[in-house]
Amino acid sequence: MPVDQNFIERILRGDRVTVARAISVVENEHADAIALLRTLYPHTGKAYRIGITGPPGAGKSTITNKLAKLFRDQNKRVGIIAVDPTSPFTGGALLGDRVRMTDVELDEGVFIRSMASRGSLGGLSKKAKEAADVLDASGYDIILMETVGVGQSELDVVRAADTTVVVLVPESGDSIQAMKAGLMEIADFFVVNKADRAGAEQAVMSIKMVLNFKPHTDGWKLDVIQTIANEGKGIDKVAEMIFSHRTYLDTKQILMKKRGERIAERIRELVGERLRVEFWNEERNTLLSSTISRVITQQTTPYDVAEELLKNFKQ
Amino acid sequence: MPVDQNFIERILRGDRVTVARAISVVENEHADAIALLRTLYPHTGKAYRIGITGPPGAGKSTITNKLAKLFRDQNKRVGIIAVDPTSPFTGGALLGDRVRMTDVELDEGVFIRSMASRGSLGGLSKKAKEAADVLDASGYDIILMETVGVGQSELDVVRAADTTVVVLVPESGDSIQAMKAGLMEIADFFVVNKADRAGAEQAVMSIKMVLNFKPHTDGWKLDVIQTIANEGKGIDKVAEMIFSHRTYLDTKQILMKKRGERIAERIRELVGERLRVEFWNEERNTLLSSTISRVITQQTTPYDVAEELLKNFKQ
Repeated sequence: MPVDQNFIERILRGDRVTVARAISVVENEHADAIALLRTLYPHTGKAYRIGITGPPGAGKSTITNKLAKLFRDQNKRVGIIAVDPTSPFTGGALLGDRVRMTDVELDEGVFIRSMASRGSLGGLSKKAKEAADVLDASGYDIILMETVGVGQSELDVVRAADTTVVVLVPESGDSIQAMKAGLMEIADFFVVNKADRAGAEQAVMSIKMVLNFKPHTDGWKLDVIQTIANEGKGIDKVAEMIFSHRTYLDTKQILMKKRGERIAERIRELVGERLRVEFWNEERNTLLSSTISRVITQQTTPYDVAEELLKNFKQ
Repeated sequence: MPVDQNFIERILRGDRVTVARAISVVENEHADAIALLRTLYPHTGKAYRIGITGPPGAGKSTITNKLAKLFRDQNKRVGIIAVDPTSPFTGGALLGDRVRMTDVELDEGVFIRSMASRGSLGGLSKKAKEAADVLDASGYDIILMETVGVGQSELDVVRAADTTVVVLVPESGDSIQAMKAGLMEIADFFVVNKADRAGAEQAVMSIKMVLNFKPHTDGWKLDVIQTIANEGKGIDKVAEMIFSHRTYLDTKQILMKKRGERIAERIRELVGERLRVEFWNEERNTLLSSTISRVITQQTTPYDVAEELLKNFKQ
């Protein structure tokens, strides 16, 4: 199926098969990807993007699943992008995340896409954001972006969200580790899931204590919600908190600022990518390969080689 | 203290205070950083670099600590770089990792440095590798690089190691999650720490089962070792396995190949960084800022703005 006017119109109409193909175009970095995204861009900006992150096993997929169900009950169309670090065996996303989406996966109003890292996760975060743009253009009201949240590149995924939920579990240490991992900086609120486990109250308390040290960002107070997601408990409170945060963003006009930052980031990414591709042409790749042995034997240094290559580029 | 010949000589002599300052020069991206690293480069390549990674709470610091002690007993000088994701409160590394290094932190033959992410973790991985170069040049025989291993950027730290150890705990699911997180691809062997906990045998079995699916890389068979690091149990086996892997690398001449790849990666990083700095000068930053509102209101797209900026660069 070529990326033509017909293809674009199908995406904008929300045709599921075409949307899936469009995301593949983006994911596989097809030659038409940039042109496609450029054409879709004027149709984006309507969807509300929610990031769900946290350590492995915290129950992010279950919460995403239940939230999607709740938004469906409000008659909203929901897109889900589950960012899944590499499975080295299949070369694709593992089935785990899909299996747990049973509440919504047969629902025509829900579009689920797992994205796996084949190369760099940096690239994956970019592709996930682009996939969100495709879903946005095709009329999904809510986009849930789920990712394991320890690495900085993975956090880039949720940093591109309007509201970011950090999911933790009661196990001791986890909350502190989460703070270390910088989740604090990106959370709009926290969820302690599996709150029926021992230590839940304590985990909530210790997170709240840490939160008290953090200055409120411009009137928004970070808070903690308890859930037992696999029983559906607390999901309504999560949705309410997302709604509160959305209202807050709208009132304070921070949403536009956030989106402006996201756009600036996107432009920087695009520029970086183009520069990289233009720089590493065959000639300079060959030049690089041919100097490695001289660097290993310390006849020259990586710093001198980089200098030489840059000179070559500027000629 | 200026970065001059005297400074360089002190580093090469292994003067601790100067080494610490040199790492700060690198960490803070001081103007002299590249010149310093370039001068030190011909003195690097002697240290053996060991990466220790795994999920939060797996006991990486304890294993690093005990390994350092063991190498000290073999009269080797040991450098430790603990890469610590951001503490948003202090802006620096949390004390946690230092505290657990009690066995070696007063030993003059051990140099410990915690590095925290202030900006991007990508940047941190680069700085950690540069710090390892400083330690290498100053005569440390072994460099242990410890990092939380879920994000791809953090994995870059250990990918730059000669031997990489992935530390897991017996808790169910962890091993599977580790496979998902791509740790498999970077591990030279696995350690199941806290092996006195329930489920240790099972965890080892399930990892071994997964490993059986993986084709042996060029004669090296991935294996699993059990440790109870806080009691020092199994650390000798870890050291032996590191030694076996080192011998294997030397015999097969893969070490040079690995180091060649590391150098190529380093050159690509240096080029990318220089291009980025040169591109984003004041003029183009201003140009970017001034177009954001037009992108938000969809009079133009990020793709068109990137195009314009690139044209400006090439003029």
